[in-house]
Amino acid sequence: IADVSPIRDFDLAAVYVSDAQYNRNIFFDTTPQAIRLYLLYNHWGFQILVYAFILVDLALAIFEDPAVVPLPIWVTSVIELVCLAAFTARLVHYAKVIPRERFWKDPKNICIFGIILLSLVDMIIYGVLKASGFYAVRWSRVLRPLLLVNITEGRQLRRAFRSIRNALPQILYVFLLFMFSVLMFSLMALKLFGKRGLKTIEGRPYFTNYLEIVFDLYVLVTTANSPDIMMPAYNFSVFFAVFFITYILINTYIFMSVFLAVVYNNYKKYLKEEVRKLVRAKRHKMVRAFGVLQERKGDEAPVVSQACWNQLVRLVQPDISNAHRELLWSVSDDNNKGCIGKVAFVQLADLLNIQVIMMKSRPHPLKTWLPSLYLSSPSRLVCRMVQHRAFMYTYDLIILVNAVFIGLDEEDPLIANVEWAFLVLYLLEILLKLYSFEPRAFFSRHQFWNWFDTIIVITALIAMIINSALKLSGGYTSRQILDIVFILRILRLIRVVDNIKRFRAIINTLIKIGPTILTFGQLIVVVYYIFAMVGMELFKGKIRFFEANSTDPDKAFCGNPLLKNSVFAKHNYCKNNFNNVISSFILLLELTVVNQCGFTAVTHISARMFFVLFHIVVVIIIINIFIAFVLEAFFVEYTVDQSNLQSSLEKKIEELELGVKQYVPDSFAIREEYIFYAMGWLSACFLPGYKTVDGLLQRMFEADLDPEDFAEDDDFDPNNPSNLNFPNPNFDSV
Amino acid sequence: IADVSPIRDFDLAAVYVSDAQYNRNIFFDTTPQAIRLYLLYNHWGFQILVYAFILVDLALAIFEDPAVVPLPIWVTSVIELVCLAAFTARLVHYAKVIPRERFWKDPKNICIFGIILLSLVDMIIYGVLKASGFYAVRWSRVLRPLLLVNITEGRQLRRAFRSIRNALPQILYVFLLFMFSVLMFSLMALKLFGKRGLKTIEGRPYFTNYLEIVFDLYVLVTTANSPDIMMPAYNFSVFFAVFFITYILINTYIFMSVFLAVVYNNYKKYLKEEVRKLVRAKRHKMVRAFGVLQERKGDEAPVVSQACWNQLVRLVQPDISNAHRELLWSVSDDNNKGCIGKVAFVQLADLLNIQVIMMKSRPHPLKTWLPSLYLSSPSRLVCRMVQHRAFMYTYDLIILVNAVFIGLDEEDPLIANVEWAFLVLYLLEILLKLYSFEPRAFFSRHQFWNWFDTIIVITALIAMIINSALKLSGGYTSRQILDIVFILRILRLIRVVDNIKRFRAIINTLIKIGPTILTFGQLIVVVYYIFAMVGMELFKGKIRFFEANSTDPDKAFCGNPLLKNSVFAKHNYCKNNFNNVISSFILLLELTVVNQCGFTAVTHISARMFFVLFHIVVVIIIINIFIAFVLEAFFVEYTVDQSNLQSSLEKKIEELELGVKQYVPDSFAIREEYIFYAMGWLSACFLPGYKTVDGLLQRMFEADLDPEDFAEDDDFDPNNPSNLNFPNPNFDSV
Repeated sequence: IADVSPIRDFDLAAVYVSDAQYNRNIFFDTTPQAIRLYLLYNHWGFQILVYAFILVDLALAIFEDPAVVPLPIWVTSVIELVCLAAFTARLVHYAKVIPRERFWKDPKNICIFGIILLSLVDMIIYGVLKASGFYAVRWSRVLRPLLLVNITEGRQLRRAFRSIRNALPQILYVFLLFMFSVLMFSLMALKLFGKRGLKTIEGRPYFTNYLEIVFDLYVLVTTANSPDIMMPAYNFSVFFAVFFITYILINTYIFMSVFLAVVYNNYKKYLKEEVRKLVRAKRHKMVRAFGVLQERKGDEAPVVSQACWNQLVRLVQPDISNAHRELLWSVSDDNNKGCIGKVAFVQLADLLNIQVIMMKSRPHPLKTWLPSLYLSSPSRLVCRMVQHRAFMYTYDLIILVNAVFIGLDEEDPLIANVEWAFLVLYLLEILLKLYSFEPRAFFSRHQFWNWFDTIIVITALIAMIINSALKLSGGYTSRQILDIVFILRILRLIRVVDNIKRFRAIINTLIKIGPTILTFGQLIVVVYYIFAMVGMELFKGKIRFFEANSTDPDKAFCGNPLLKNSVFAKHNYCKNNFNNVISSFILLLELTVVNQCGFTAVTHISARMFFVLFHIVVVIIIINIFIAFVLEAFFVEYTVDQSNLQSSLEKKIEELELGVKQYVPDSFAIREEYIFYAMGWLSACFLPGYKTVDGLLQRMFEADLDPEDFAEDDDFDPNNPSNLNFPNPNFDSV
Repeated sequence: IADVSPIRDFDLAAVYVSDAQYNRNIFFDTTPQAIRLYLLYNHWGFQILVYAFILVDLALAIFEDPAVVPLPIWVTSVIELVCLAAFTARLVHYAKVIPRERFWKDPKNICIFGIILLSLVDMIIYGVLKASGFYAVRWSRVLRPLLLVNITEGRQLRRAFRSIRNALPQILYVFLLFMFSVLMFSLMALKLFGKRGLKTIEGRPYFTNYLEIVFDLYVLVTTANSPDIMMPAYNFSVFFAVFFITYILINTYIFMSVFLAVVYNNYKKYLKEEVRKLVRAKRHKMVRAFGVLQERKGDEAPVVSQACWNQLVRLVQPDISNAHRELLWSVSDDNNKGCIGKVAFVQLADLLNIQVIMMKSRPHPLKTWLPSLYLSSPSRLVCRMVQHRAFMYTYDLIILVNAVFIGLDEEDPLIANVEWAFLVLYLLEILLKLYSFEPRAFFSRHQFWNWFDTIIVITALIAMIINSALKLSGGYTSRQILDIVFILRILRLIRVVDNIKRFRAIINTLIKIGPTILTFGQLIVVVYYIFAMVGMELFKGKIRFFEANSTDPDKAFCGNPLLKNSVFAKHNYCKNNFNNVISSFILLLELTVVNQCGFTAVTHISARMFFVLFHIVVVIIIINIFIAFVLEAFFVEYTVDQSNLQSSLEKKIEELELGVKQYVPDSFAIREEYIFYAMGWLSACFLPGYKTVDGLLQRMFEADLDPEDFAEDDDFDPNNPSNLNFPNPNFDSV
């Protein structure tokens, strides 16, 4: 390494920093062309495009047989070919970015390649078979959701799958014990009830077939068939209730809690390990960036100058404001030396991830344009009034009164007119606030509730005007528009909750864990899609749904004679079927909530395996991981304070404010959050959310992380790239 | 304090140590009479008697109107009077033990006094009203379970109630937010579905009454009416499913997880605080005991001599073996000084709580009586065979084969005879083990599985013999005895699980948290009893159950015309009623599992409040605390190692073993646990369980406890008793 390298490769350093910031672990070539390609690869436009193509590919299930909206095979095939072409292009792009030998070592790439290839093969086979009139199955559709897991951007999802895989052995042991208990109880039930000639309410013999007992008792764990399954025995003798009580106590309460405990514990353990690896990889990347930019003066430790650093930050985050950049520099260069060492430099990735909102407090535009009017005493009175707490409480009261009016019958013309009055009141509120607060501050990016209010009120206004126009012109009301109006009106009520501090704390925590819930959403989509595809092939057309006005005699048993007199048909569950992808998803959701398997009546008994498997995968594993995550996130909220970096940033902000106190602007406070902003031209606040899911994860386990992971790593060799890129764990491919 | 007090009050010191050991916080007089009374008060016989009387008092509900087994009022009244007399006697005894002014300051005592008084008043009013033919309610029965909470022995239960009470404010905020969400969704449902003229499967209008919608959607959170509640809307349009999916996602998954998080977090926080207080109180008591026994030689720190200590331990735990006592002393007096200081003395309470099993390895009795036969080579071969792993595996195989035979039809004479063969095989196993292992070791107290096997095999043998005798004499089989035989046969299969190491670890953890689950059991009994009493007064006789062979026309609607054509009656749920205390308990259990409220149809709509309240109390609060406890206990198992005291005890045991290695006995190993015992005459093992629930709690929070709580408390003044007895928290009375 040259002591002073005058022409530094800023692009390369910027890529390292950006990779560290977003926790990307891609081993790219360091030639200038490769770096440019790599920057292009990471461009948000391409990332969105990839997700859009995956979405289209997944959505094809709506149009393919069994379809919601049938389209000819050639249309869906052409769309799928376009998608596959896009995935291939992305893969080729990736292959250009990273060294050849690395490309084929990465199971993710092989997996995507395999999915594309298998899809093509399947399409050809399907086309040929269909053309020659044979029965054909599009089996490769099961592979589609795996694209979500295996694309470069699916890091979070891969991590979730890895934690599940790592927790599996432990879960398996508890599950085996649990199944042993179910089998034992089933055997006992067979011996106790089988010979007594009891009947279920459907008139079938009660507890005579061992496998059916096992299935029924398994379902009892989900509480879906409670108390139906117990009633025949309980009606026969009160003592038999003891059997079921013991069963529920052991299998529903104790075992389900143990499942949660095991899943939670393992999830936490492995996630901590993953976060530790992430933090180490991030550090290595930052050290590498430092190695590119460092200057060495004589025997002193290498440093990075402020000019260098500024150029780097501008490259990494072009939209950063000067004030924000200066703030970050002053945090890094605590002693005003004009240059920073390795340790301070490494912080940069984390600093960039802290969301700082910079607000220049500007005078109200009206003050500039019409100072005499805006500063007149009536105008000042209005401003003071709007900023007063009583204004907020008045509107909370108005909202509550509105809630009562919404509950009343809206066909009464009086009430319909009152609704207009409320709308005018809400509009007035927004206009008054815009009058007394600076509009750009009012509509700044993080003012979630202001945006929420304005959008809802404006949309409601538009919808009501359209509705009235329709009514006046044609004399009829559009049901859809009315529905939208109602929903908007009711959503407006949420505002009340946000004004109560205690509630806001809970809601903020919920919003904070929002992005991670999205990861779980993807996880659920992957699992649901696979089960929906398999379910559709197995069960499509077994149950038919008839419209309410249908007179078909088959309607009484959902078009399947096997369901005659079944509870399934009696409860009119016919729409719970696998006849298209949307019904399948809704049915799977119902199965997640409560195990409702009328299905098993219409197919072979082994189809129950499908439902049990689904229950194990979704309820026992994924829902428990979800609960574990919510628990952990809440505990972090309750216990962990800000990170060190956040507090030093905050301290710096306060220090700087002291020097610029003279800039304190005029009235600015709307709610408590604003009071904080009003302290100076260089104000900042930390939004509760983190920019990245990784940030939340890192914070969740920060207290447990090994301090040495943050310590200076002296024997790091920037020339040995094997130190830098952590191998992608094996499970990257599913 | 005299420097050397030659006549020490060992009784007083023993009481302090015993109180510290069992975490009793009773401020007693220190006069010799009061101490003797206090010792009597703590006698296990009296404690069992109190629980027996409470049990009888609670069980009276079975015989009182509405009764399972009706008894005349005078009988139940006399029994209740006896119970009340017993409680009064216990209270008077307690009043004699503690100073008068303390007695009336303790809300527990006032509470018990109040319960006794109110019960008497209620009995008189009830008797008078009944005698004069008026309608009367035994309202004081609701108070009965509160006795369980307020007796001196109900420490664990009071603690559980206190944690619940402390967690209430936090739970309340989340609950209000949750209810707000339910109300909002209900309003939306009213507006979206109310005007569409949809019908439920029972033909009633769908979602037209706001309060009914709120109730239905509240029940949907418990997943009890899923998917029924959604079907009419879903059948109308697939888009309406989105409403229900959103609802379930937010209210069932997210809010229920948040409830668990809040309950868990608060439970943990307050329990930690309680455990800290407990530990501090324990320390103070031990310091007080030390103050009584201490000797001071010149300027040195006060000590307790070994002789003194021995006498104390013998008083505290008369059944302790000499070897055990010596072991404890050698742990306390690590440097063999012959006396111990305050710090070492204070450990005693914890040391006594560690369960140490002392086993003198004795030669087999047959070896003593018939040495030539027992030591002959065929006999040695048998012993080696039995101790071999293959023997265990053979019997596991036999058990599995037996499981298959149990599953087969037992009326086949061949299979009935095979069952005899299995029984003989099991008997043979026990006899062989008794031959090769020392019988007293085989049947020692902690050999749970040996006892389990033997009892089950012997009982099964007796039951089968009785059954055969009945068959031979009268030619008929008793169904009850057959049931017992079947259950015993199936329980025998559990043995297989214990032989697999992984499963045993899980089972051990479950057994370990067993005692605390009993505390939750009491909590549940208190809550259930109160709800059952109220429910019986509100709903008794509203629904009647008819035997299967009844021809009463009312049978089709459970004797209540309001239930005509209801799902409740169709599903034959009539036995789910509040007509007696046993039915009520079973119904409440069903409500806990799944909210099943056909009831609300037959009474005023406000009765739904009863079910919602029950759901909030039991499912949201108590079940979540239960889950929180299981989670915490499992995490402790996964993470925390032995306490320091346990490891120093274990180290000591190992040291001592080195000196007595020559005593290694002959074959002793049955299972892995035995191998550990075989190491010396003074062998010990730590059973996974703790003697007290407090021990487990203390261990659970040990890592989080402030170390200063364990540190020497120098400014402790033994003359100021206010330091010693921690005030009982206010919630001691419910």
